[in-house]
Amino acid sequence: MVPGPYLLYLGSSRDEVGIKTSRGLAVFRAEDCVGEFRRDDCPLTLGLARLGFADAVGAGANTLVLGIVNAGGRLAPQLVDDAEAALAAGLHVASGLHHRLKDEPRLVAAAQRHGRTLFDVREPPADLSVGNGAPRAGLRLLTVGTDCSVGKMYTTLALEKELRARSIKADFRATGQTGILISGSGVPLDAVIADFISGAIEMISPPRHDGGWDLIEGQGSLFHPSFAGVSTGLLHGAQPDALVICHDPVRAHMRGVPHFRLPDIGACLEANIKVAQLTNPAVQAVGIALNTSMLPRGEAAALCAETSVQLGLPCTDPIAFGVTSIIDRLLQCFAPLAPGQTALS
Amino acid sequence: MVPGPYLLYLGSSRDEVGIKTSRGLAVFRAEDCVGEFRRDDCPLTLGLARLGFADAVGAGANTLVLGIVNAGGRLAPQLVDDAEAALAAGLHVASGLHHRLKDEPRLVAAAQRHGRTLFDVREPPADLSVGNGAPRAGLRLLTVGTDCSVGKMYTTLALEKELRARSIKADFRATGQTGILISGSGVPLDAVIADFISGAIEMISPPRHDGGWDLIEGQGSLFHPSFAGVSTGLLHGAQPDALVICHDPVRAHMRGVPHFRLPDIGACLEANIKVAQLTNPAVQAVGIALNTSMLPRGEAAALCAETSVQLGLPCTDPIAFGVTSIIDRLLQCFAPLAPGQTALS
Repeated sequence: MVPGPYLLYLGSSRDEVGIKTSRGLAVFRAEDCVGEFRRDDCPLTLGLARLGFADAVGAGANTLVLGIVNAGGRLAPQLVDDAEAALAAGLHVASGLHHRLKDEPRLVAAAQRHGRTLFDVREPPADLSVGNGAPRAGLRLLTVGTDCSVGKMYTTLALEKELRARSIKADFRATGQTGILISGSGVPLDAVIADFISGAIEMISPPRHDGGWDLIEGQGSLFHPSFAGVSTGLLHGAQPDALVICHDPVRAHMRGVPHFRLPDIGACLEANIKVAQLTNPAVQAVGIALNTSMLPRGEAAALCAETSVQLGLPCTDPIAFGVTSIIDRLLQCFAPLAPGQTALS
Repeated sequence: MVPGPYLLYLGSSRDEVGIKTSRGLAVFRAEDCVGEFRRDDCPLTLGLARLGFADAVGAGANTLVLGIVNAGGRLAPQLVDDAEAALAAGLHVASGLHHRLKDEPRLVAAAQRHGRTLFDVREPPADLSVGNGAPRAGLRLLTVGTDCSVGKMYTTLALEKELRARSIKADFRATGQTGILISGSGVPLDAVIADFISGAIEMISPPRHDGGWDLIEGQGSLFHPSFAGVSTGLLHGAQPDALVICHDPVRAHMRGVPHFRLPDIGACLEANIKVAQLTNPAVQAVGIALNTSMLPRGEAAALCAETSVQLGLPCTDPIAFGVTSIIDRLLQCFAPLAPGQTALS
């Protein structure tokens, strides 16, 4: 595991969704985050102390987390410069980008020189198998989305918290770098070889017999021209009993592809149900999660209410209003199982 | 490129679709194949001379091609033994399996010892980008399937041959190891990192302005629980104008997953059209290719005629009856473009 406490990297990011890994850690592992590193041209903040590398070490930080995402996941020269300076100051460096730290000779040399470690979180397990789609025991919920970066991880973690608060066993199953950094395990699905997408999900969410839920973090969107393959394999591997769909109501176009508009929530849900039915014909939708952070609270509440009526499902913003309505519906649809009893029995 | 002539490996294979790489080379690169290597327990043959490794070298072979496929693509111990013996006899060894020859220390050592080369065809290019789905010039046809290994590569190569016979520019774009061995280029799609599936197809099938067709080899099936993610990304990256669907009418279940039945051709075609519309709303189906090798010729012809009427599309077995009917329909739907004129103009 990556040793905390963390210094969270923002660099020169100008895009809120581009810093979602850093923000995810700031929210869900707040106790492990001592500060943020950002350049003068970065207009964003996580609300943490702004620290240089040496100051961060002084404040107890052990690792710089390069918690930013960019299409393609390449290591820009400035990022390499910053990582090298962090190593020199005495920090380990962790990254979830496709481009591995350990493939950057300057960083490998610097880490060796300063006795620090490079952590590439987006390194999939070597022993994956192809999926088989065979029915397996246990209850599984998957978050899906109209687009990338619409709050699937946040929603999934919020659902886990709410189920546990009701004394129902529930485990978050991470499929992305932020989720893996937060939960300590999972599979970086977008870094897996294409043939093993569904198999990787079958591996991280094996049959369970304790009556609890696996809450699987969704990725991408069936309607995203770059990543729909990942979303499709994830749906098949997850074999979900329940789906929650996540959506950003103010986004102008699909992330990274300005010529693609977001799909309608209802049409997107229908497509997801149809694809999911291949491995679980009984799959059903149990809720809608909207990211309303850009809307006034009253407008956000009205939009949730309206969307709920329109689609016949509980609709909420997990951050603003919690997820009790979705969990209520989930438990209505799926009576809790006794330990040892399985969804297949 | 892998140096011919080839000795084609069958080993102990007992399954016709398991030897499709060896058979593909025997058919489409017949002039480069001097023999087949099979063990006594192998009931299959390509109709070539059965040769041991030393005899193959004597007959002029330069490379042993491990032209077999198996789920997961692992190198079984017998396969490693045979490859090692082939190297000792003076042959290079080529493989399209997931498990790389160069990750097998015994083979690396043997290749070095005997001055021979190991070719891992299923090694994707290092410089892939994520797809963007932006409309691009040119005409593209993609073969899709109700299942894996139903004749997509054969059909695509047959379509290329027929278009060229009519003096229309056409290029096969390989997406699997056999196709790559046959055509000399392409991308081993199932070995690509999940995030780059559609981007890899955009790369091997760039905008074209000469009025010709790119004929893209399909992979997997939207209805296969192991590989539908690959098929989805392929559809989006291919941005096809035309689809040809391939089907094996006598197969009892989806390949490798006995608990999944093959989808109906019409339902499968509809699903493919729907997914393909994300990046090309004007996509249309132009034909059906049936693998009728297990049926008497009269029955095969009747089935093609019946399927054609049922779905309103030309239907043929490319091997038994050729693909003129599909190409006729294709050219009806898409009037030939003048060089310089593009589908977008």
